[in-house]
Amino acid sequence: MSDSPTALVLSCTLKRSPDESSSVLIGQEFLDALGTHGVTGELVRVVDHDVRFGVTTDEGDGDEWPTIREKVLAADILVIATPIWMGQPSSVCKMVMERLDAELSETDDEGRMSTYNKVAAVAVVGNEDGAHHTTAEVLQGLNDVGFSVAANGSTYWVGEAMQGTDYQDLEQKPEKTTSTTTTAAANTAHLARLLRSQGYPPA
Amino acid sequence: MSDSPTALVLSCTLKRSPDESSSVLIGQEFLDALGTHGVTGELVRVVDHDVRFGVTTDEGDGDEWPTIREKVLAADILVIATPIWMGQPSSVCKMVMERLDAELSETDDEGRMSTYNKVAAVAVVGNEDGAHHTTAEVLQGLNDVGFSVAANGSTYWVGEAMQGTDYQDLEQKPEKTTSTTTTAAANTAHLARLLRSQGYPPA
Amino acid sequence: MSDSPTALVLSCTLKRSPDESSSVLIGQEFLDALGTHGVTGELVRVVDHDVRFGVTTDEGDGDEWPTIREKVLAADILVIATPIWMGQPSSVCKMVMERLDAELSETDDEGRMSTYNKVAAVAVVGNEDGAHHTTAEVLQGLNDVGFSVAANGSTYWVGEAMQGTDYQDLEQKPEKTTSTTTTAAANTAHLARLLRSQGYPPA
Amino acid sequence: MSDSPTALVLSCTLKRSPDESSSVLIGQEFLDALGTHGVTGELVRVVDHDVRFGVTTDEGDGDEWPTIREKVLAADILVIATPIWMGQPSSVCKMVMERLDAELSETDDEGRMSTYNKVAAVAVVGNEDGAHHTTAEVLQGLNDVGFSVAANGSTYWVGEAMQGTDYQDLEQKPEKTTSTTTTAAANTAHLARLLRSQGYPPA
Repeated sequence: MSDSPTALVLSCTLKRSPDESSSVLIGQEFLDALGTHGVTGELVRVVDHDVRFGVTTDEGDGDEWPTIREKVLAADILVIATPIWMGQPSSVCKMVMERLDAELSETDDEGRMSTYNKVAAVAVVGNEDGAHHTTAEVLQGLNDVGFSVAANGSTYWVGEAMQGTDYQDLEQKPEKTTSTTTTAAANTAHLARLLRSQGYPPA
Repeated sequence: MSDSPTALVLSCTLKRSPDESSSVLIGQEFLDALGTHGVTGELVRVVDHDVRFGVTTDEGDGDEWPTIREKVLAADILVIATPIWMGQPSSVCKMVMERLDAELSETDDEGRMSTYNKVAAVAVVGNEDGAHHTTAEVLQGLNDVGFSVAANGSTYWVGEAMQGTDYQDLEQKPEKTTSTTTTAAANTAHLARLLRSQGYPPA
Repeated sequence: MSDSPTALVLSCTLKRSPDESSSVLIGQEFLDALGTHGVTGELVRVVDHDVRFGVTTDEGDGDEWPTIREKVLAADILVIATPIWMGQPSSVCKMVMERLDAELSETDDEGRMSTYNKVAAVAVVGNEDGAHHTTAEVLQGLNDVGFSVAANGSTYWVGEAMQGTDYQDLEQKPEKTTSTTTTAAANTAHLARLLRSQGYPPA
Repeated sequence: MSDSPTALVLSCTLKRSPDESSSVLIGQEFLDALGTHGVTGELVRVVDHDVRFGVTTDEGDGDEWPTIREKVLAADILVIATPIWMGQPSSVCKMVMERLDAELSETDDEGRMSTYNKVAAVAVVGNEDGAHHTTAEVLQGLNDVGFSVAANGSTYWVGEAMQGTDYQDLEQKPEKTTSTTTTAAANTAHLARLLRSQGYPPA
């Protein structure tokens, strides 16, 4: 295997392409920031695919999760980019986490989950309030199914209480979000490199 | 209008009919408990319908939310019955709440939301852990969009940490869950009666 | 008893008097808004009193919770005003809720908690992000121990992501927060009146 | 420095010594499990010390946080062991996190927080429900202030819904909790070793 980790960003917007999406935007920004550390990867907009509700690796009958799952398993880094609704992660984000829950049973000969030695990060956007909690929900779920988390492994933007502007419509990139994304990506890339070469020991 | 409030239970299981579902079961138990207070109603299993991701009242193109929405608007009581996944509400539950978010903009001539004077309750099941938080997420979302909440307005069952038995497979009904359901239903019915006859004043 | 409900606001700031506190400010604004509906009451800054950690009604040894508890029991409305730290309710807020947890065991001859027929409301401030989740945590806890919640029973203000201005230092009152406080107070007062005269029936 | 990482466990029970505490017990079990990987350390019962509410590194006037803080900064691993109240972390746990929030401003010459290259883990106990959410709250807060999190970096025990037995009173150690603690400790020790020798690069 090459020296550089790879990344998959899953955008959990509720809106299909070609609609503009703030969570696609911040997800792409995270991927670009990873790129400055030699990490290559791609962004998948989950709702453009026919992913089914469920908690198995394949719900059958045309379920398109298996294709996305292959990308998750092939990548060293998983970034969940999600919008906020009602101060909480989107339903699409929850659907993705439920599908990842199946990895609890997918262990190798030495009892390690398929997700071990992978690093998760989170990127959250909403027009107001909810980023910390959304991050908490996602980090807990992903850590539960085997992902590690680097120092300051998340980034976000939200506006002032009850205002309505979207991240994608801001006239200027918010400097603090940009520098937070930069830090999160640098740390995530570093941790992914460490775990690629020196993974967790068997149980 | 008749004297008695009506109720709608939305089961947010991930599994379609005819699969057995614990959240359908506890939802039906809640409806039965409401029945002893003269409340009639029905249970809808959301995932049996083609409800789309989105935050409007009608996403078009065959979206079946509008039919469910009519039932929500016609009822005095909305019970959300949801399974727990990863300690959190199901994605289907989140999808329902996102659709209800549209009611923020659906106000009458006096600025009151379509949901005003309705009471929300929550029924949660999982094989282990997560009921309080799931209740918190749902109550906050529903209160935000205009529902009131009666004293002790929720019920739940979960098993011991990391065990795997489902509510529907218990050999005996857990007495504490049954009495909690009874209390939640009694209080919810009482509050719904009060708000039917003496609703919130215009802003 | 008189016709008008009474209210107690508990400010859960971490800072003692005479420091300025945003959660005292928004708590007072909520009390003033209740006042326009004939509700009288007072605000208590919890941290100015020697309240002990614990889950009983009186931890002894100089514990000052019992005095505050008497005010809670005497009021029809309890407003929890809390700052946000790390996107979550303050430790003082959690300490208050843990003390209220004791009310689960304080029931009258007919099995109703001491808190029944009381209405809870929440007012949250932070310089950025966390209001919805903080509201969720508090509403769930208070509903669990017997308080009812009126439609739109909370208010809040937070600034843009990672900015540092406090609510108390804003040059102008944020109009949306003010109107949200107005609505929350009106609905809370209405519900408190209903439950004072027509309380929950015995179990 | 020696080859082996060191650990600090902070038990966030509400009860002072010499009362028995389930969160002290599970915290000690976590420390013992770390010990099998060559990690030495100690457990501090926070409530036995006069820690003040606040968000600075030293609130003055006899505040005993600075002594605990020194231990945090000296250790490679921080384990937060907390009871659950109302499905949420204890107030003492929140107080600890608020004090750690001060580390956001404590950066070295290269902009890295004092907590960088440290690993956080969580151990949660309650007689029923709330472990996943409590873990989420703690992991998000600690990751926010610079701690990394190893794969499956938490452990917990809770009983069946609304039952009242404490972890410390169980007749037999729950096997699943024990094996979860073992895994969490092994992974946390591994990650701490990696970050000790190959820390995050400067920003």
